[in-house]
Amino acid sequence: MLAPFPHRYEVAFKLDDPAHAEGTLVAAEAPAFRVGPPPQFDGRPGHHSPETLLLAAIASCHMTTLVALARRKELPIRDYAARAAGTLEKTRDGLRFTTIQLRVDASTDAGREAELRALIEAAETHCIVSNALALRVELEVVTPEGNPGRL
Amino acid sequence: MLAPFPHRYEVAFKLDDPAHAEGTLVAAEAPAFRVGPPPQFDGRPGHHSPETLLLAAIASCHMTTLVALARRKELPIRDYAARAAGTLEKTRDGLRFTTIQLRVDASTDAGREAELRALIEAAETHCIVSNALALRVELEVVTPEGNPGRL
Repeated sequence: MLAPFPHRYEVAFKLDDPAHAEGTLVAAEAPAFRVGPPPQFDGRPGHHSPETLLLAAIASCHMTTLVALARRKELPIRDYAARAAGTLEKTRDGLRFTTIQLRVDASTDAGREAELRALIEAAETHCIVSNALALRVELEVVTPEGNPGRL
Repeated sequence: MLAPFPHRYEVAFKLDDPAHAEGTLVAAEAPAFRVGPPPQFDGRPGHHSPETLLLAAIASCHMTTLVALARRKELPIRDYAARAAGTLEKTRDGLRFTTIQLRVDASTDAGREAELRALIEAAETHCIVSNALALRVELEVVTPEGNPGRL
């Protein structure tokens, strides 16, 4: 059952390696993980970065929203994969994400592809993470040729 | 060395348990992790959620930005812990994050607390994740009484 609104979400972070700007992120009910700067900002490999966590939030929010919408419509989701990509550029205002793209590749039962495509688009407009952003997420829905039942 | 701009960041997500809306998030150079809906949206425990990943991105971005600024000023960071919290509410436009709060508790050498506080505030204005958001992150800097060297 859905918890009553408002919902409250919380995470805790502790810096434990200041020399490498790395620390531990803890969220309730999930395994802790390491976070630090990405290689593009001189970070070491082996941990997640703020940049990829933002993209992870966007991609996974689209998925959870889509699954919720598809349940209501009793539309089966056979396959779902997504790639989220962001471009960070120097602008007059400083470093900014200038584009965020989400590419979704999904399939359902043959004959219901148009319904799935509509729900994939609706999920992006309802995604609470995308709706918290100042820039629009560019959605791409992949449509392989000659593959019935797959968008 | 900083990679030349623009930077490109990317993650991949695959739904592998449609019944529970759970799947695997993969980012280069970091361990994969499970993502699905939070308990508030009927999710099972044991995985991360889009909601907490957004907060994780905000908290860790503040940290990496602060460490980078502190290095330039040769200001030691003795301790750093942060909590990020978000409130999700039903609004006329649908479900929306209406507040995001970041509480930072940090310390430096005695006598340099004012410098650290200024950098903590500057880090929030430079954080590329916060700057990608449509709403302002409310920053709280914790100042325990009678604890020299700690903000």
